Amino acid sequence: MIKPIKISAFGSYLPEKVSSSDLEMKYGLPLGWSEKYSGVKSRHHVTFESNGYMGAKAADQALENAGLNLSDVSLLISASGTYDYPIPNQASVIKAQMKDGISANTPAIDIDSTCLSFVTAFEIAANLFDNKNYKHILIVCSEISSKAINPSNWETLTLFGDAAVAVLVSYDESLKSHYIKGGQKTYSEGVHEAMIEGGGNKNFFKEYSYSPELHSFKMNGRQLLRLAHQKIPDFMAWFFKDSGYLLSDLDAIIPHQASKTGNAVFSQLYDLEPGVIKSNLADRGNCIAASIPLALMEAIAIGEIKRGDVCLISGTSAGFSIGGVLFKY
Amino acid sequence: MIKPIKISAFGSYLPEKVSSSDLEMKYGLPLGWSEKYSGVKSRHHVTFESNGYMGAKAADQALENAGLNLSDVSLLISASGTYDYPIPNQASVIKAQMKDGISANTPAIDIDSTCLSFVTAFEIAANLFDNKNYKHILIVCSEISSKAINPSNWETLTLFGDAAVAVLVSYDESLKSHYIKGGQKTYSEGVHEAMIEGGGNKNFFKEYSYSPELHSFKMNGRQLLRLAHQKIPDFMAWFFKDSGYLLSDLDAIIPHQASKTGNAVFSQLYDLEPGVIKSNLADRGNCIAASIPLALMEAIAIGEIKRGDVCLISGTSAGFSIGGVLFKY
Repeated sequence: MIKPIKISAFGSYLPEKVSSSDLEMKYGLPLGWSEKYSGVKSRHHVTFESNGYMGAKAADQALENAGLNLSDVSLLISASGTYDYPIPNQASVIKAQMKDGISANTPAIDIDSTCLSFVTAFEIAANLFDNKNYKHILIVCSEISSKAINPSNWETLTLFGDAAVAVLVSYDESLKSHYIKGGQKTYSEGVHEAMIEGGGNKNFFKEYSYSPELHSFKMNGRQLLRLAHQKIPDFMAWFFKDSGYLLSDLDAIIPHQASKTGNAVFSQLYDLEPGVIKSNLADRGNCIAASIPLALMEAIAIGEIKRGDVCLISGTSAGFSIGGVLFKY
Repeated sequence: MIKPIKISAFGSYLPEKVSSSDLEMKYGLPLGWSEKYSGVKSRHHVTFESNGYMGAKAADQALENAGLNLSDVSLLISASGTYDYPIPNQASVIKAQMKDGISANTPAIDIDSTCLSFVTAFEIAANLFDNKNYKHILIVCSEISSKAINPSNWETLTLFGDAAVAVLVSYDESLKSHYIKGGQKTYSEGVHEAMIEGGGNKNFFKEYSYSPELHSFKMNGRQLLRLAHQKIPDFMAWFFKDSGYLLSDLDAIIPHQASKTGNAVFSQLYDLEPGVIKSNLADRGNCIAASIPLALMEAIAIGEIKRGDVCLISGTSAGFSIGGVLFKY
């Protein structure tokens, strides 16, 4: 059942650009390794910024672009896999650093499905809109991956980037823009294939002091790729079954920018028109939950996605999950 | 607008019981300090358990009580402030440890509004139900507070407990049980009054090694109490304005078990019938997001809440937020 939801504005914040050659020289990798194996030419890494700082900048910019104030927003959702503090939740930290963060009492909640957090938040927002209690929802994905990277793991070292994106979604009763369908499946046989093992209650700081191995992101790339190849057809068949659309009908597919090989799975599995699948991996890296909204924003900015286009945002995430939302922009 | 949602089953897991005298002797507090100042006689603390382990036990028990399998569940929500790993999200970790966790592909997502996470998840579940894609949603609150406690801070040392509760909510078109209203306000002037400062990206573990001060929960009790006294009347006036109910109509109020003085604020502000406000602080302590569903489950178990009763779940949370959901049980 279609639901009234319109993307009314974007905002973003990118910290300092780091080229692959800078990274390769700094950590002693062969020049060209990053682009060849990770597919990333440059990405952005924080210097002084926090998740809250970047998220607030992106959020304020989205509101400015929409000509709205925070007090017009019914709900602020932080949809991210990384955070400034274990407590409080990240949305509270972002809100407190926004221009009207103290004067407005907008509720601030977090949604986390790791790399799919934006997709999940978009689906939940579409279900909340009622033109009464919920008119505008601001979804903020602010991700810092660069701190939890083990420099001796070249794949993750060169793959990940930092970024914040804010997406203002609004109730639009014209239904010109609308939500068509959303869904996720969690395939738990892959739960251990992408993790940060230390830093929560399981390997608590008090007993496990910092080590790049324990406190950095680890992924079993080969196994994740195998899972993606195996499960994506199952997921897509289920997802499109009663959607009223075929994959080949879509104007744009904005996948999570998981990795060079991960991004290739979709085009290997499906015979799609050139240009339908959007990617910003080469210039941004994998920005966790910020990847999808950033690629969407950038494709709209250069005119590759226009109002009325039918778009699929979809991807895999640590956990291991596959999810997607189909919508008319 | 009322929405069809019925609490169809509970499950719970409590780790080892720790009496206040045990705690007082272990850490050199005057005997009786805990009950006098924190209002807690005993609480439960993990020995070997993880958030995932406890959450999976509670979740499996709720399904068993409902006579359902995980594959009948449309969505698994982890609604908690604490977690086993920074990545993946906690719901994925809980699901993987459930009886049918590997064979069922139920989507697993996290919602975090710290102590209000259950309240937020309940509202979102009520909005998702459509009798098609969403029929049963399993909300799991699995909280371990005992690891992030500084023993030299007697207030938090004696106040907090660990617990897991799972609540199965179901679409019920009879509307005999239903959601009436939900809402939250975030008052960001209180963002720094309840925090764990270390362990996220802001004071990253690589640069800030473990200290009980930095990596434990800190709260400015006096300031939080002042905020509660100041903001609760504002919140409740707004919340009840167009709800069709008065606070004095309610059969039961299940507040977050924030603290002895925190719990007293409500009865100081409002003249309510004796017994309306439920509390399990003395036997469970403050179990973060698990407090509300645990107190609800226990009040139902002893017959203090019956089918058809109008209930308010409400509380304050780090961030600083006040939220609530009004529903007919």
